[in-house]
Amino acid sequence: MAFNSFGNILRLTTFGESHGIAIGGVLDGFPAGVEIDLKAVQEELDRRKPGQSKIVTQRKEPDTVEFLSGIFEGRSTGTSIGFIIKNTNQKSKDYSHNTDVYRPSHADFTYDKKYGIRDHRGGGRSSARETANWVVAGALAKQLISHISINAYTSSVGEIEMKQEYQHLDFSKIESNDIRCPDAEMAEKMIDKIKEIRKLGDTIGGTISCVVQNMPVGLGEPIFHKLHAELGKAMLSLNAVKGFEFGSGFDGTKMKGSQHNDLFNEDGSTKTNLSGGIQGGISNGMDIYFRVAFKPVATIMQNQPTINSKGEATEIMGKGRHDPCVVPRAVPVIEALTALVLADFYLLNKTRKIS
Amino acid sequence: MAFNSFGNILRLTTFGESHGIAIGGVLDGFPAGVEIDLKAVQEELDRRKPGQSKIVTQRKEPDTVEFLSGIFEGRSTGTSIGFIIKNTNQKSKDYSHNTDVYRPSHADFTYDKKYGIRDHRGGGRSSARETANWVVAGALAKQLISHISINAYTSSVGEIEMKQEYQHLDFSKIESNDIRCPDAEMAEKMIDKIKEIRKLGDTIGGTISCVVQNMPVGLGEPIFHKLHAELGKAMLSLNAVKGFEFGSGFDGTKMKGSQHNDLFNEDGSTKTNLSGGIQGGISNGMDIYFRVAFKPVATIMQNQPTINSKGEATEIMGKGRHDPCVVPRAVPVIEALTALVLADFYLLNKTRKIS
Amino acid sequence: MAFNSFGNILRLTTFGESHGIAIGGVLDGFPAGVEIDLKAVQEELDRRKPGQSKIVTQRKEPDTVEFLSGIFEGRSTGTSIGFIIKNTNQKSKDYSHNTDVYRPSHADFTYDKKYGIRDHRGGGRSSARETANWVVAGALAKQLISHISINAYTSSVGEIEMKQEYQHLDFSKIESNDIRCPDAEMAEKMIDKIKEIRKLGDTIGGTISCVVQNMPVGLGEPIFHKLHAELGKAMLSLNAVKGFEFGSGFDGTKMKGSQHNDLFNEDGSTKTNLSGGIQGGISNGMDIYFRVAFKPVATIMQNQPTINSKGEATEIMGKGRHDPCVVPRAVPVIEALTALVLADFYLLNKTRKIS
Amino acid sequence: MAFNSFGNILRLTTFGESHGIAIGGVLDGFPAGVEIDLKAVQEELDRRKPGQSKIVTQRKEPDTVEFLSGIFEGRSTGTSIGFIIKNTNQKSKDYSHNTDVYRPSHADFTYDKKYGIRDHRGGGRSSARETANWVVAGALAKQLISHISINAYTSSVGEIEMKQEYQHLDFSKIESNDIRCPDAEMAEKMIDKIKEIRKLGDTIGGTISCVVQNMPVGLGEPIFHKLHAELGKAMLSLNAVKGFEFGSGFDGTKMKGSQHNDLFNEDGSTKTNLSGGIQGGISNGMDIYFRVAFKPVATIMQNQPTINSKGEATEIMGKGRHDPCVVPRAVPVIEALTALVLADFYLLNKTRKIS
Repeated sequence: MAFNSFGNILRLTTFGESHGIAIGGVLDGFPAGVEIDLKAVQEELDRRKPGQSKIVTQRKEPDTVEFLSGIFEGRSTGTSIGFIIKNTNQKSKDYSHNTDVYRPSHADFTYDKKYGIRDHRGGGRSSARETANWVVAGALAKQLISHISINAYTSSVGEIEMKQEYQHLDFSKIESNDIRCPDAEMAEKMIDKIKEIRKLGDTIGGTISCVVQNMPVGLGEPIFHKLHAELGKAMLSLNAVKGFEFGSGFDGTKMKGSQHNDLFNEDGSTKTNLSGGIQGGISNGMDIYFRVAFKPVATIMQNQPTINSKGEATEIMGKGRHDPCVVPRAVPVIEALTALVLADFYLLNKTRKIS
Repeated sequence: MAFNSFGNILRLTTFGESHGIAIGGVLDGFPAGVEIDLKAVQEELDRRKPGQSKIVTQRKEPDTVEFLSGIFEGRSTGTSIGFIIKNTNQKSKDYSHNTDVYRPSHADFTYDKKYGIRDHRGGGRSSARETANWVVAGALAKQLISHISINAYTSSVGEIEMKQEYQHLDFSKIESNDIRCPDAEMAEKMIDKIKEIRKLGDTIGGTISCVVQNMPVGLGEPIFHKLHAELGKAMLSLNAVKGFEFGSGFDGTKMKGSQHNDLFNEDGSTKTNLSGGIQGGISNGMDIYFRVAFKPVATIMQNQPTINSKGEATEIMGKGRHDPCVVPRAVPVIEALTALVLADFYLLNKTRKIS
Repeated sequence: MAFNSFGNILRLTTFGESHGIAIGGVLDGFPAGVEIDLKAVQEELDRRKPGQSKIVTQRKEPDTVEFLSGIFEGRSTGTSIGFIIKNTNQKSKDYSHNTDVYRPSHADFTYDKKYGIRDHRGGGRSSARETANWVVAGALAKQLISHISINAYTSSVGEIEMKQEYQHLDFSKIESNDIRCPDAEMAEKMIDKIKEIRKLGDTIGGTISCVVQNMPVGLGEPIFHKLHAELGKAMLSLNAVKGFEFGSGFDGTKMKGSQHNDLFNEDGSTKTNLSGGIQGGISNGMDIYFRVAFKPVATIMQNQPTINSKGEATEIMGKGRHDPCVVPRAVPVIEALTALVLADFYLLNKTRKIS
Repeated sequence: MAFNSFGNILRLTTFGESHGIAIGGVLDGFPAGVEIDLKAVQEELDRRKPGQSKIVTQRKEPDTVEFLSGIFEGRSTGTSIGFIIKNTNQKSKDYSHNTDVYRPSHADFTYDKKYGIRDHRGGGRSSARETANWVVAGALAKQLISHISINAYTSSVGEIEMKQEYQHLDFSKIESNDIRCPDAEMAEKMIDKIKEIRKLGDTIGGTISCVVQNMPVGLGEPIFHKLHAELGKAMLSLNAVKGFEFGSGFDGTKMKGSQHNDLFNEDGSTKTNLSGGIQGGISNGMDIYFRVAFKPVATIMQNQPTINSKGEATEIMGKGRHDPCVVPRAVPVIEALTALVLADFYLLNKTRKIS
């Protein structure tokens, strides 16, 4: 079963509460002999860390990963890779008022009802702090499948939506602004929107798009581990995600087969790519692209009526330092999850036919 | 790993090609002592079978399930439940022309490249015929969690989209028309649309909505088996699906936190339900609702240029008898998958706290 | 979890009761492109079938395997391989007297207490008939790893024990007698012993030894899937098994390190092989050898006092046709399980280092 | 798959090399609401630690476990429990001479061949240091199933073997001597033997017996997760183990069915217990007992010829501080593994019938 594990051959198992001593994980099944660039791992983690820009939470946590095993003299040994990230800036006081109060649209109520107990500090296990673990593991996965290129970017903030197709974007610009949108003009609008929302003590949703290029043909394991199904599951595991679509997505439902079918070129590539690079759950070598929907962050700096664990009416107002929009910090997380899924399928595919 | 298995405690493993001798599966982990209504299982299968109405494929297959084990004197014994559905109407001749040709936007190309061999008859393992297995298993799962109510229905065909919220629908009307839409007027429009499309030798996409009522609180297993993530994965496993959203979905990305948060009533229910009945990956007792996007069926009755396995240009035209729109027959499949996911979480939840 | 599944990448899931309609299974993860010799599969099954000689049960069942999927035009397609073996000679009448009676040292009592219901006919799911499924899957596994040689043989029946080391045996003689012992003289003694025991209406235990030759180096997955641990688990899954030892086994506990250590030759082979071909859970290329202990069959043709499900004292006497000694028919089962374990590790090992 | 994971619902995933920064693990699936006695966990760890007596390695390591998550205000929260044990006394220098040399009957050769790289310091991942992780997890498991009593003890050292049946032993005496044998006289002989062996710079094997009392009926999950099969796998996962037998074990192979069958009392208990408390893979409520065979420790303080990674002949002599006999320190490890297996089955059994 493994409630806190993800993946098959390449398998991440994680632990950690937002305000515990440390979070961390074990990355199992990573093959031996891969040269590990530890600095690159930390850089991915820095892309996710709080306090990195003016439009994210101003909480400061260094988020330094410490590897405890599985890497020796600069290379993976094939044994499980254990790592931790210490929680250095816990400020539990910010959450002491939440002990017994259920924050609306958070997981306080459901955790309490399910387990009969919860670590209420900062959301405990339900906190998005967990995603730092995923970024560490994903950064290692990226190094395993370095021949594949993965780029995620912010494609909308609230109503502000980038309409260009990804083919017209310059992914090298993604990191050039705080919102991680490759279109400078749109980026500015998005950033302004977030600043405006934050001033209101409110939050806003958005979408992230992700494009995978240089895909090998043949990754994905039908019937029950189709490539897009695992990508979808991975994305839906991420806090605040409400939807996933790939290729033509929801728009494709309005099309006719004669419009939607991707005709072949003689080399096996296709003239169009409404399939989004996946057919029958298996990559066809074309670019994979998908879009992920994020709801607005539930913690707002406004007074909200709510209840406590006794069912008594009370009020709550966000304290602490929170993100007005989850999207910019989620970009590296989406890439990390994508890398984990692809690396797992890359390894699985080595077993699927005799050669 | 289990490439062809789905679920954790309640686990379905399937096999079978479209035009092989039989398809079938093993449902493992089904608890002992459940009274099994075999007739109800066959009825679910009949909802999915070909030839049931004028807007689906006119292929005739009885699709009779035979149970081979695990049920004794009308009750489940706790041992694995084996079943088969014989392929009685195989007409491989319809597919003999496809031996070496890759049908556009089908899985022919990817299966061939991945495995180096494929059963080309009717799509082989990639055929949606597999979903008959899911309906059998799902029908058993429904009987295990009979206290939970699951209703799926067609919510759009092409541009024809039902806008009412599910609360205003009468689910008892779903089976009253061929498209399985509870709104009679919309149903007629959808049916007309499909007939029109079929006359063109074309196909059309659509969406299915699903609503789960009488949900217990506490189902779902974070961090990596969140309830909506497993639902999403299940739905994305279904042929032709391009997207999944739950609760506020993609529309929720445009909202502010102050609008989106579901405020509590004193009994723990919420005044709104933009969360879609799931918070932090765990059911909160409110209705779960989600929407699934289907692309148009790839097999069209029109001439299409394509290539064969040698990369040579050729042409293909759909023969055989195919669905102009996958949606009406997919409704029971979506319910089945939902039941499988929920029943698995229902069993898992028995282990999550001491009592 | 998968209560009825075995293996990781190569994964067998089974179903079936002794006196149900059929038993069968799904072999998942079998790579594409392997030429399948169906006749060889049936031959393995024939080695296990009842009625094959005078020292086994005289029950007659043809035990014909029918493959339903996953094999196309003589080769594996990489999709799941479904198969069934029909129960043709069920004679439930022989068991009708057992409906409510717990046979001593059978699983009647424990199944009833665990599940609250049981299929009492012939032991239901707990019957060794299940092992026919394993032989089918193992025969396919043997074809996948045909470069590895697996030979099991009867090494003792009761007190009659073959003392020679396997190196002095001619494995081609195993099938030359009914007990499957490569030493003709010992075989005769064992057969006589079984005949004598059967006349008494009694049964007798025994041991089977198994030798794996031409092993590649590197199979086995520490820490928790060590090669010998998985072999041991496989063997202990087989009905009537009470013990497993490999290499020096229990005798090795009496030795000193200076005696027990296997010193290296310069080519990496070892001068002795007390390790039994496995070090740290990984094959070292030397022969693997192990020994499996079987208790006497619990069904005896003598009157035994026992209880029924109400806890009332009653009597029971074996009817039907049973084996006086399980060992000769278990030889092909042990080989099958060994092949399944090794084939799984063979596939897993393809993912463990970059090349 | 999960190479470094053990268990199903209750699942331990571990990491760590002997001379890395830390070893540790994640215990997943531990139910919420269990009061955790952290002191008791450390006490179990102290039973395993080096330097505790004169007959074990004189290496000094405090082996202090640090819990990082999953326990809040003295109780388990249902989330994954992360923990580490720092490697404080690494003395890599003791192993610097091993960099390139394969120690006979160690895993140096097999790790190197399998992975193409190994952390040679103290055996790296293959070191029995890993078992400290198991003891931590097992100590938690013991607290979950505190109604079940588990006692392991040394039953032989070399030829010195305790013949009494466990029913005649006083388990409260196990911890009263350094060898952990409940018979004071035998204990003294065993200790003398080990001292004698150590003086020779040699090592010796032995056996550990384990008895489980107050077992509930119904634990164990056939067909492929039989209780004794999982116990056997667990024990065979432990370094230096060469064999496992339960109930009548290898001796049972010499018996007749009429002698071996355990006849019932009217309360469902049995008059004898040659079955060892398990029938058909499911506990029957009688005591479970089994025996585990350990080879002599491979590291001896004598000069041994060997080879290096280039296949060149060389010599090696054990340095560092090693155990002359693994048995006394393995006693708590066997109990820990037993507890992990039983606790997992305890949780699984909650899902196996409707109530």
